[in-house]
Amino acid sequence: MAEPEWESLEQCLEKHLPPTDLREVKRLLYGKETRKLDLPSQALECAAEGDFELQGYAFEAAEEQLRGPRTVRVGLVQNRIPLPAEAPVAKQVSALHRRIEAIVEVAAMCGVNIICFQEAWTMPFAFCTREKLPWTEFAESAEDGPTTRFCQKLAKKHNMVVVSPILERDGAHGDVLWNTAVVISNSGAVLGKTRKNHIPRVGDFNESTYYMEGNLGHPVFQTQFGRIAVNICYGRHHPLNWFMYSVNGADIIFNPSATIGALRPGRLSAVAAQGRASVWLGSGNPFLSFFSHSESMWPIEARNAAIANHCFTCAINRVGKEHFPHEFTSGDGKKAHKDFGYFYGSSYVAAPDSSRTPGLSRTRDGLLVAELNLNLCRQVNDVWNFKMTGRYDMYARELAEAVQPDYRPHIVRE
Amino acid sequence: MAEPEWESLEQCLEKHLPPTDLREVKRLLYGKETRKLDLPSQALECAAEGDFELQGYAFEAAEEQLRGPRTVRVGLVQNRIPLPAEAPVAKQVSALHRRIEAIVEVAAMCGVNIICFQEAWTMPFAFCTREKLPWTEFAESAEDGPTTRFCQKLAKKHNMVVVSPILERDGAHGDVLWNTAVVISNSGAVLGKTRKNHIPRVGDFNESTYYMEGNLGHPVFQTQFGRIAVNICYGRHHPLNWFMYSVNGADIIFNPSATIGALRPGRLSAVAAQGRASVWLGSGNPFLSFFSHSESMWPIEARNAAIANHCFTCAINRVGKEHFPHEFTSGDGKKAHKDFGYFYGSSYVAAPDSSRTPGLSRTRDGLLVAELNLNLCRQVNDVWNFKMTGRYDMYARELAEAVQPDYRPHIVRE
Repeated sequence: MAEPEWESLEQCLEKHLPPTDLREVKRLLYGKETRKLDLPSQALECAAEGDFELQGYAFEAAEEQLRGPRTVRVGLVQNRIPLPAEAPVAKQVSALHRRIEAIVEVAAMCGVNIICFQEAWTMPFAFCTREKLPWTEFAESAEDGPTTRFCQKLAKKHNMVVVSPILERDGAHGDVLWNTAVVISNSGAVLGKTRKNHIPRVGDFNESTYYMEGNLGHPVFQTQFGRIAVNICYGRHHPLNWFMYSVNGADIIFNPSATIGALRPGRLSAVAAQGRASVWLGSGNPFLSFFSHSESMWPIEARNAAIANHCFTCAINRVGKEHFPHEFTSGDGKKAHKDFGYFYGSSYVAAPDSSRTPGLSRTRDGLLVAELNLNLCRQVNDVWNFKMTGRYDMYARELAEAVQPDYRPHIVRE
Repeated sequence: MAEPEWESLEQCLEKHLPPTDLREVKRLLYGKETRKLDLPSQALECAAEGDFELQGYAFEAAEEQLRGPRTVRVGLVQNRIPLPAEAPVAKQVSALHRRIEAIVEVAAMCGVNIICFQEAWTMPFAFCTREKLPWTEFAESAEDGPTTRFCQKLAKKHNMVVVSPILERDGAHGDVLWNTAVVISNSGAVLGKTRKNHIPRVGDFNESTYYMEGNLGHPVFQTQFGRIAVNICYGRHHPLNWFMYSVNGADIIFNPSATIGALRPGRLSAVAAQGRASVWLGSGNPFLSFFSHSESMWPIEARNAAIANHCFTCAINRVGKEHFPHEFTSGDGKKAHKDFGYFYGSSYVAAPDSSRTPGLSRTRDGLLVAELNLNLCRQVNDVWNFKMTGRYDMYARELAEAVQPDYRPHIVRE
């Protein structure tokens, strides 16, 4: 299992492969090369001072006769929690606001038009604990909570659309919680909100202890810089979720996430090093734990969604390890523990032409700036025609049948 | 653009990376390591004599109390056409039968239970030509054509399920053609057939010149060794196609394909080497051609399908270049040409736990043997729960609305 301190796939390949082979490997892995952006030196200096990674890449499209290039710069932010999870709630929120404010300043220097933060960005990812207090105190109103007001100021100051994924307290509906992304226009107005549609029940996390599946469908937000949607975290495993955002016209789908690598690197490395997992199967458990990490899915899912839906996707993950004051359990024979592994960062942007940027670091805070020419979406659509050849009427019919309780799968027997 | 003679990603990484880094890179790229199978030396010798690659890998699952391991060996065959496309039809078919017969012999030595050949395996992939004769003469009855009879003999002799993707002539329905896979039981009986559901209209290929979208839905075949389905070629771009096979209970979905790398490697390499495509955009065309190749999609799509649907997927592609007697065109300002690029092989198996085998060669004929413990499907299903958390009733409703001609996308405006 790749340990957290192993920085990134890209760094390793660049260190060891001869230039010609590196080019071929990158092309097979990442498609057409993305151009590195020439970012302002002031931004690079600020990022170095602020101890976060700053990378920039551009995706280009063919020229058209009737439409000019529709160029937009998106910013993806990944970060660790600056204060320990034990710190007072208000101090943690404040420290996160300050951290993000500094990163957004740099994004503004880089000309970012739309920025998206990580899932539940104002808090540690405490949903493993099964405790309500103090964690539910991080919840806020999507419409006028302190974090939304903070983001509105940023949006107005920098003329930037801000996508702010938070834990929402829904005062209008019985004070329930939701996992929500608030979309704030570059005018500073709250454009709307969207909610996490699919909830994990995996390993340490059954997040339905805190909130239920979103009830807002698949809204797409028309911003000045393009049509965007937000597929929160676990929704990336569900191709239909990406698909419906695309059907509703999204050019860019953000996927703010919080997802982890190996649960118990030590023992699992031993399993992996063995090459044969079967020797460990007596207990059954290490093996099951082994495949409840997501790192080898990460480069696949958002990228497949960009390809399948002719749109850009922006995959954002946290970094670092978060320690909680009280023990919690996840089953599979593991002892109670106070942390659940490490968030492996690796945020990236994928394009409809199957190319992608390199990933940000697996361990450091970072800002990824990507310049997208949105014309690429329709151009690839017109070449590959997945929507035109999609036969969605057939699938609407088949799916409607398949969800019936008495559905009989179409199985051919000898 | 990776040229055809560049053998494989895996070979390159293994040549250049130090062992520790290689292990990390492979784990990030391919998930949990698959165990190399110990194949019989006789099989390896026969493959060497027959000049085809032979690789074998095993995917394991946890032990269960009530079910024993459900182990099955699948074989994926990739090959070039042994005779030129100009040779007489009967001779070409016969040469392909002989080639496949030899490879199946080796598969039998390796204990393969289910084997799948590449798309339209009895013929050159002539659908670019737009000519009817002689190419439509390769079409055969799925039920009792010479190729089906040939496969029945193989199936019975080797106690092996044979998936035989052919161009079908449908005598019972006005002699139309279909792109069909015939599934032959290890008993030798024709278990049934399934048809390509999605048809490309890309670059050199509009295959609807020859056949229409399949009308058989998403059948799954219950064989002695497990439930299998066949998603032919272009259907791999459509997540809903994979999904419906999975809903119908497939443990293994084969994806016999014929898909190509760069259309004009010379000029496109120049575009790529430039790093900036925009300088070429005056004509618009090279850029568009550039993203009408599929090689960077190939490792993503079948693997995403295995993850999203908790099943195994087997991606099979041809190798080699095929030259046709008469010129054909594909637009995009390209001159008429007699070949459309190279099939890049790279056949692989992907597992529900997001691991995968290395790919076969990009250039050589090959047989990939994979031992699958089908129990892994339900085990991963129970850990990740994508079906349980899939909310398919919501999507059935949304999709039914979305296909209405007067559908209004859900767009939020300021």
